[in-house]
Amino acid sequence: MQSPQLVHLIKLLSRLPGLGPRSGRRAALHLIKNKEQALSPLLSALTQAAESIVTCNQCKNLDTISPCHICSSPQRDQDTLCIVEDVSDLWALERSASFKGQYHVLGGTLSAIGGVGPEELGIGTLIARVLMLSNLREIVIALSATVEGQTTAHYVHRALQEACPHLAFSALAHGIPLGGELDYLDDGTLTTALMARRAL
Amino acid sequence: MQSPQLVHLIKLLSRLPGLGPRSGRRAALHLIKNKEQALSPLLSALTQAAESIVTCNQCKNLDTISPCHICSSPQRDQDTLCIVEDVSDLWALERSASFKGQYHVLGGTLSAIGGVGPEELGIGTLIARVLMLSNLREIVIALSATVEGQTTAHYVHRALQEACPHLAFSALAHGIPLGGELDYLDDGTLTTALMARRAL
Repeated sequence: MQSPQLVHLIKLLSRLPGLGPRSGRRAALHLIKNKEQALSPLLSALTQAAESIVTCNQCKNLDTISPCHICSSPQRDQDTLCIVEDVSDLWALERSASFKGQYHVLGGTLSAIGGVGPEELGIGTLIARVLMLSNLREIVIALSATVEGQTTAHYVHRALQEACPHLAFSALAHGIPLGGELDYLDDGTLTTALMARRAL
Repeated sequence: MQSPQLVHLIKLLSRLPGLGPRSGRRAALHLIKNKEQALSPLLSALTQAAESIVTCNQCKNLDTISPCHICSSPQRDQDTLCIVEDVSDLWALERSASFKGQYHVLGGTLSAIGGVGPEELGIGTLIARVLMLSNLREIVIALSATVEGQTTAHYVHRALQEACPHLAFSALAHGIPLGGELDYLDDGTLTTALMARRAL
């Protein structure tokens, strides 16, 4: 007995990551009950985002301009490039405010099952970009510590090292996360943290 | 370094019930990465909903027409009226397909702290509507089994019984939910289920 417009809206909201049928219904109800405070602002924010957000033609970040604010900023270091899997990883690193160099977003990981090869990830474009960056000294490969992430990291490392043997390569350190309790950590993390122990 | 449009969109998405800052970011990324498949359909669904969804002037359900499809359907029983707290409760009962009568949505529960009194819940309008329904035989008070819900149910029952003493009143049965394991149920539910035990 629900109107088709409502059913359609609930279906679309339920498809958002993190939402399901129940939370989709709650979100739809919330939006419709608060047309002025919630629905209208979201509508205009979505319209603006749809119109203005583009993919940066250099690093594949999402921004309103291309090249993006990071690529075009004179304050960013030109000698380091950080390779990440996804825009959300770039955002996470930016939130930590601990990296001041350039980024490159792969947009995924290599996956034989998913049909994602080096061409889909634009490894050729990445190498071409790296060759153009004349001040580059170091490439930080900051991919996830998953099997797919590490396989991709290995492939990217090998391909870039072949093309630019003069560059330094690094990866994020493995170890115990801050606040992590040993009892709750998996054996792999503990082994890695123990092997990479630092002198005090 | 994120564009203000993105920050604004993430903020609005994070405010949806069931979403937080992290899932808001994920939802925003998902929408922007899938402009054709996700953002545009959601945009038009929201626009349509904003334009077409209205509150039914009889039962306060949300629909594209007022009186809503339930109030105006000749197939629905005219002799029972079910009083619910929220539109989501009406939807839940409709999904169960076990009630074929009329509805009335209170839109909340009585709350001294929240400043919600009988006027805010439209108890007067409800009584006026009940007096107009000439075929009405029974009123099902289907409010939540919470303290607020049961307080409101008690008040609504008393007010309606005073105005229409000839009507039958009922409430949803309390007991063990289907699939419920005794060990996981609270003492209150178990006590109620035991006291209301049925002969076999």
